[in-house]
Amino acid sequence: MERVVVIGGGGAGTAAATITKRLNPELKVSVFTEFSDIAYSPCGIPFVHGREIEKFEDLFLSTVQRYEEDGLDMRMETVVTDIDLDRRTITTKNQPEGFDQLILCTGFFWEQPDVPGVNLDGIHYVKDIRQSMEFDKQLDSMKRIVVVGAGPVGVEMAGGLARRGLQVDLVDEGPWVLHEILDPDVAKPVHDSLEARGVTLHLGTKTESFEGDKDGHVNAVVTSDGVLECDAVVTGLHKVPNTKLAEAAGLKLGTTGAVVVDDHMRTSAPGVWAAGDVVEIPHGLNMIPIVGLTGAHAYAQGRVAAVNITGGDLAYDPVWVPWGMVAGDYTIGGFSMGENLAKSVGIPYVLAKGVGITKARYYPGAEKTFVKLLAEPDTLRLIGGVIHGGEGVKERCDFLAFAAKRGATLYDLAYMENIYSPPIGALFEPIQIAAQNALAEQRANRLAVAT
Amino acid sequence: MERVVVIGGGGAGTAAATITKRLNPELKVSVFTEFSDIAYSPCGIPFVHGREIEKFEDLFLSTVQRYEEDGLDMRMETVVTDIDLDRRTITTKNQPEGFDQLILCTGFFWEQPDVPGVNLDGIHYVKDIRQSMEFDKQLDSMKRIVVVGAGPVGVEMAGGLARRGLQVDLVDEGPWVLHEILDPDVAKPVHDSLEARGVTLHLGTKTESFEGDKDGHVNAVVTSDGVLECDAVVTGLHKVPNTKLAEAAGLKLGTTGAVVVDDHMRTSAPGVWAAGDVVEIPHGLNMIPIVGLTGAHAYAQGRVAAVNITGGDLAYDPVWVPWGMVAGDYTIGGFSMGENLAKSVGIPYVLAKGVGITKARYYPGAEKTFVKLLAEPDTLRLIGGVIHGGEGVKERCDFLAFAAKRGATLYDLAYMENIYSPPIGALFEPIQIAAQNALAEQRANRLAVAT
Repeated sequence: MERVVVIGGGGAGTAAATITKRLNPELKVSVFTEFSDIAYSPCGIPFVHGREIEKFEDLFLSTVQRYEEDGLDMRMETVVTDIDLDRRTITTKNQPEGFDQLILCTGFFWEQPDVPGVNLDGIHYVKDIRQSMEFDKQLDSMKRIVVVGAGPVGVEMAGGLARRGLQVDLVDEGPWVLHEILDPDVAKPVHDSLEARGVTLHLGTKTESFEGDKDGHVNAVVTSDGVLECDAVVTGLHKVPNTKLAEAAGLKLGTTGAVVVDDHMRTSAPGVWAAGDVVEIPHGLNMIPIVGLTGAHAYAQGRVAAVNITGGDLAYDPVWVPWGMVAGDYTIGGFSMGENLAKSVGIPYVLAKGVGITKARYYPGAEKTFVKLLAEPDTLRLIGGVIHGGEGVKERCDFLAFAAKRGATLYDLAYMENIYSPPIGALFEPIQIAAQNALAEQRANRLAVAT
Repeated sequence: MERVVVIGGGGAGTAAATITKRLNPELKVSVFTEFSDIAYSPCGIPFVHGREIEKFEDLFLSTVQRYEEDGLDMRMETVVTDIDLDRRTITTKNQPEGFDQLILCTGFFWEQPDVPGVNLDGIHYVKDIRQSMEFDKQLDSMKRIVVVGAGPVGVEMAGGLARRGLQVDLVDEGPWVLHEILDPDVAKPVHDSLEARGVTLHLGTKTESFEGDKDGHVNAVVTSDGVLECDAVVTGLHKVPNTKLAEAAGLKLGTTGAVVVDDHMRTSAPGVWAAGDVVEIPHGLNMIPIVGLTGAHAYAQGRVAAVNITGGDLAYDPVWVPWGMVAGDYTIGGFSMGENLAKSVGIPYVLAKGVGITKARYYPGAEKTFVKLLAEPDTLRLIGGVIHGGEGVKERCDFLAFAAKRGATLYDLAYMENIYSPPIGALFEPIQIAAQNALAEQRANRLAVAT
């Protein structure tokens, strides 16, 4: 019986393992993870801290026992220390174990702030659910938290902790929160919503050091904006691909530092596959490799590896990265890139901007939805976009990523059909409005040039 | 100065007139309507009766004065009785008036029940806002209403009137409500929701006659299910294209009885255009002409006529008809066709069925969304679908209509990227789940055939 070894029990690893076993029950499939839990949603952690979700137990999707009943060989709390590609073994607990096919799903670790005091107690990273459960208990007796880094997790944690009644300072060097993905014009409603929850924003502010008490527990963050006393620190910086094993085994790494895979999730070594946050994936627009995708991407990549390992032929396409989140109480999203990123990487674009509503204007609960689309000059092919406010942000961004991947233009979107029914949709679809506005501007410009 | 005459002040007519004037302010644009109001939303009427929207005045988007200020020649309460294509005149109030270009937007009238007593007072059609305002006052002293016809407006009216506290009987010959667009498996939650609002359903029930009191006001509906006493009747049958003028003028009518237009909204007569409910439009799947589209379609068609009249070159594409509505408190929608319609017209299909959730499973407010997709056997190209339950029905159906029009397959949807963020989207997109299920079944079938 052939043996498939999966290293990692996150989204990619569990998808790869369960789907491999389902597609070919003859295979022995082993999952190695350093943690004691499997199949829970780390994405839900900020919302349990924020008491929007009742308890951590709600985040568990399945149990180790259930996986074992499905025929998987579950190796919990088992760290893989080495991969030997020649002997086709991995090493755990100083013992080699053989594999025929290996799927590397070692995920990511959080970037640490590169300042003195970073090893003090009480500096929390949002990842391991057991640590978060412990942290949550401590929060009951805490008053003031500093969140370092206004990336997605930092923003969700700041909003959640403030909702819970804690005093929260959110510190980031960038000029606005989420500045790597968000355009400045979208930052205002996000800032307003976070502040309405009670978060104090310290933007353009450098974290200089952490200070601790005599027991080595953090009690202050020294920033360029002054000293912020605190009972604990939460970090929300970048995800860094966890390539330690891959690198030691000599797998090819890419420009981002992550593992290079082909469109079948094959690494540079025969019979070795990788999926999830440890790999880089080309962006659909320009084929430049990127990292830092979502759990949905990790799961999908794990599935592709599983299908191909079991004799299928399934490609994982370049990504158009629909994204969305709730910042404070304000929903934001987008796909591919916004204006800020397009400018940073020097991609020229035509802008389509519009404001629509989520229900008929006169229907209770109708909210404004702001749409900004970026299109290639001349062809007007969709290259990116941002949507914020109101319901339907997730569905619209999924749609636009799908449409952009297939070459849709502003013309297509300007004349798309849409549902008009007062309680669920307005006469004009917000996406349509943005695209129509751009076409009207293009016409006006052509007329101006012609005269 | 060339003169453009628009007959009709609904969605198509107002779009055609305002956009023509905006694109070429030199033109004299006249709008003739038999009504005293312009630019209101008839789609909102059931929700005012149901007290979800406060007052009828909320439904008005603009005023006659505003249109006049924009340079339009508004001919309110003016019935056009004749079109003379040779002399290029229309007749109103026994006077001919000339036109250079004519846009026919005469809309629809409601099918009348074909039974005795149909001309009694108190049988209400949902169309003219002034009549609805009058009816709404009468409703204050009424107790019991019979709604004849469980089409979209009948269902919205029944739900609205029941919500207001009236005793409502909904009568339809079909075996379930909305049976022309809805599949039987989707009817149950709709029935449950209407009944929860207090609507009594009389399905498979024929309306045989209306009976009246000595003043000629309806006071009972005789049905195959017995006599239903009532203070008034609301009808909700089919929309019938209002082709009286078109037919008299000799414009070509199509298989549906509606006016035939080309993809530029030109009728069979030079310089005569038509848009909205008076025309038939080919369905994108099989190019068979259909009628009974929505206000959003009417507006878009009016725009196409306007663009082409003013020297542009814009095609109105065959339609894939995304639709959606709230029945009782349950949201339903779809695009192109469901199973029931596909079977009726003999279109073979592969079924993709799945149940997803609108937020992460553990996030408060997560609701089930049911997705059913129909795809062409072999190619698995999308040909129709139904979505019901939860938020995002409208956005998903808009998306699917767009994707189907562009030839998307179940493969494309099974591997679409999606946003996973607990408060707004689950790990798996419901559309993706349905498509994945179908692919898994296809694989299983192939394996079964192979062995």
